[in-house]
Amino acid sequence: MSTPTRPFPQHVIARKRDGHALSAGEIASFVRGATDGSWADYQLSALLMAIYLKGLDGGETAELTGAMMRSGEMADLSSVPGPKADKHSTGGVGDKVSLHLAPMVAACGVAVPMISGRGLGHTGGTLDKLESIPGFSTRLSLSEYRAQVGRIGLALIGQTAELAPADRKLYALRDVTATVECIPLICASILSKKLAEGTDVLVSDVKFGRGAFMKDKARARELALALVAVARALGKPTRAVLTAMDEPLGLAVGNALEVAESVACLRGRGPEDLMEVTYVIGEQMLILAGAAADPAEARARLERSIASGSALEKFRAVVEAQGGDARVADDPSLLPAARLAADLPSPGDGFVARVDALEVAIAALRLGAGRSRAEDRIDPAVGVAGLVKVGARVARGQPLCTIHANDAGALDEARAKLSQAIGVGDRPVHPPKRIEEIIG
Amino acid sequence: MSTPTRPFPQHVIARKRDGHALSAGEIASFVRGATDGSWADYQLSALLMAIYLKGLDGGETAELTGAMMRSGEMADLSSVPGPKADKHSTGGVGDKVSLHLAPMVAACGVAVPMISGRGLGHTGGTLDKLESIPGFSTRLSLSEYRAQVGRIGLALIGQTAELAPADRKLYALRDVTATVECIPLICASILSKKLAEGTDVLVSDVKFGRGAFMKDKARARELALALVAVARALGKPTRAVLTAMDEPLGLAVGNALEVAESVACLRGRGPEDLMEVTYVIGEQMLILAGAAADPAEARARLERSIASGSALEKFRAVVEAQGGDARVADDPSLLPAARLAADLPSPGDGFVARVDALEVAIAALRLGAGRSRAEDRIDPAVGVAGLVKVGARVARGQPLCTIHANDAGALDEARAKLSQAIGVGDRPVHPPKRIEEIIG
Repeated sequence: MSTPTRPFPQHVIARKRDGHALSAGEIASFVRGATDGSWADYQLSALLMAIYLKGLDGGETAELTGAMMRSGEMADLSSVPGPKADKHSTGGVGDKVSLHLAPMVAACGVAVPMISGRGLGHTGGTLDKLESIPGFSTRLSLSEYRAQVGRIGLALIGQTAELAPADRKLYALRDVTATVECIPLICASILSKKLAEGTDVLVSDVKFGRGAFMKDKARARELALALVAVARALGKPTRAVLTAMDEPLGLAVGNALEVAESVACLRGRGPEDLMEVTYVIGEQMLILAGAAADPAEARARLERSIASGSALEKFRAVVEAQGGDARVADDPSLLPAARLAADLPSPGDGFVARVDALEVAIAALRLGAGRSRAEDRIDPAVGVAGLVKVGARVARGQPLCTIHANDAGALDEARAKLSQAIGVGDRPVHPPKRIEEIIG
Repeated sequence: MSTPTRPFPQHVIARKRDGHALSAGEIASFVRGATDGSWADYQLSALLMAIYLKGLDGGETAELTGAMMRSGEMADLSSVPGPKADKHSTGGVGDKVSLHLAPMVAACGVAVPMISGRGLGHTGGTLDKLESIPGFSTRLSLSEYRAQVGRIGLALIGQTAELAPADRKLYALRDVTATVECIPLICASILSKKLAEGTDVLVSDVKFGRGAFMKDKARARELALALVAVARALGKPTRAVLTAMDEPLGLAVGNALEVAESVACLRGRGPEDLMEVTYVIGEQMLILAGAAADPAEARARLERSIASGSALEKFRAVVEAQGGDARVADDPSLLPAARLAADLPSPGDGFVARVDALEVAIAALRLGAGRSRAEDRIDPAVGVAGLVKVGARVARGQPLCTIHANDAGALDEARAKLSQAIGVGDRPVHPPKRIEEIIG
């Protein structure tokens, strides 16, 4: 009998099934198996289910993340001088923070090497938003990406085939085997990609609430703690910001509408809730990167990047570098616009008590702003803008939002959905707390 | 969006993952998915792992068994007059009971439609033993099988492609995804095949101990209870006999050696332990089939089948019907014989304290009597015979067993293994209890 040089897949599966911690060698075998096909898909999925039900401890999660990170190329950015910082969001409705925060941080002298994903289900993807800018390409090779980060301190691209291939394989399997909602696996998936892109530090925006992937604050906090612990174990300083996602972030939901809102942010006209989240994340990025000593100093630098126009200039530079029409920074009417626009009037006088992020997202999805399935095409122009915020005083007939549509039937559907999503009551309502906690 | 007419695999997986009982429709979707490929292998294995870790209740197990049983053809034996009875064993070392018990029961006028499996790992398979008879074929079509059961009241064949295809698919997946040792899945696998073969009643021999699939008596009892409950739920009267498997059953381990021992049983010269288990199972088969009122009457009929020679005659008939050399019933020297034979002498005077069935099985496996992997070929001639039994008094130098080998190196290895397997001590030892309980 030949001596196996690698552990047999079924032995590794059995060990996790029985609740044991997997060794580094066993985890390496699993990740190599996902990458080179030496484990069958049915073995990968059996172990994913065993992990879902039996968990991974902190050491195993760090080991898994590291192995997935190293499963493909690592975008070595050591040739780029200075600190590199990135941020990540678990996904929310109207979350366009990356679009304006990345240029703001880059304008502060901290390079931002950002690799993002596409939207699926009710949350939008940064790539989809960027691609609503005419000509903008998110497909750069690793060497183009490295060169651009070196040249302008900023690149906004999609995941390439070379980076963390084990994650792509495992994520696709998790999606069809009911093993997505598992904190150690989520943590390894997020961090393996983000750390392979070459950033030095990372700030995670972990959202909870109606419009978030995690509805429950305690679960979101658990994920935030895991992200911080695992990234640190892999030598990457990280903080996680726990933020509420019960109402949409900002006033717009929909790809081009959100780009326009980000441009407004860069011009100093961002909505208050969106800017609050933007500044808190940006502050942590600058502090971790060593570009500011404390939140106040970081905040001052970020505000200056807007006031001086340098952040907007960085935005123009990245759009131009990636083939987009940089004039959108000055004239958002160059973005795709929908044929139809209709206001949703308030049914009465009162106070906005509820803007349900999930329902707003579903309305936007029906308009064509997102994907139900990975192969769906999205319409960059459609969505919802001018949303009222919880706590606002409204008069009967005043618009609660404006619906942008390319199809009259879809507009009617969205209107019905939105009138359920937005609740107006008699009593004054406090605006909700947005930043719950900074972890790390 | 189209309305799914079947539940999505990932939704069914998620329900079991979260500990819910699956509906009949969800179980049907899973079994159909295994049969027609509408579930991917990675989805089947994810659900198998969720079932392993979250369990199935009695109703779900019966539903699963029934769906698997109906996943292919059902061997309808209603054209064969009279009751049909079968037995099944969870597998043990030296377990050749089927070879002589099936002809004994058939000689008592109860037809035995028996579909058996091959050996894998340390336990032998009935098919492999039968195929050591020169010319014997275990590959009959379903119509040949039906005709033979009608003609001589007995057929001993292997699983056909038509019967319970879902079981074949799921068993192959379980083997490589560490989901074998799961009582509801074992129960469904055993019963779906056995009930598709057309038997009216079934007796299960559930073994526990060193040489059994289940080491633990409590787990074996749990399986026995499940087998009885599920078979009854499907309308098939069933009993389970819980038997000890710490030492091998009978005196021989190895394919042709076991056929010779079964022929000895049919000639009234079977070892006492083997005949005890044979009679207890046979009694239950006759009682369930309505051919005897109580164990004493059944025992008398079975004993008469041996004394009268009618059981041996039935054995000749089935061997001949399936193309084998029926003269082995009178002259076992026509069976394949090994080139080398060596006795293992007792190291001292005393009492046999231990004959470790697992170690004996591993010795036989090294000699070539079994398979480590499904694709291994077996050597029908080799094995161990003349084994001493626990409790026996032995003198120094007296043979503890005889090793039959075709390779001198393998013989040395087997000798070393067997001298560890058989323990001789100073104190008298009681022979172990063999029948623990009859359930049902």
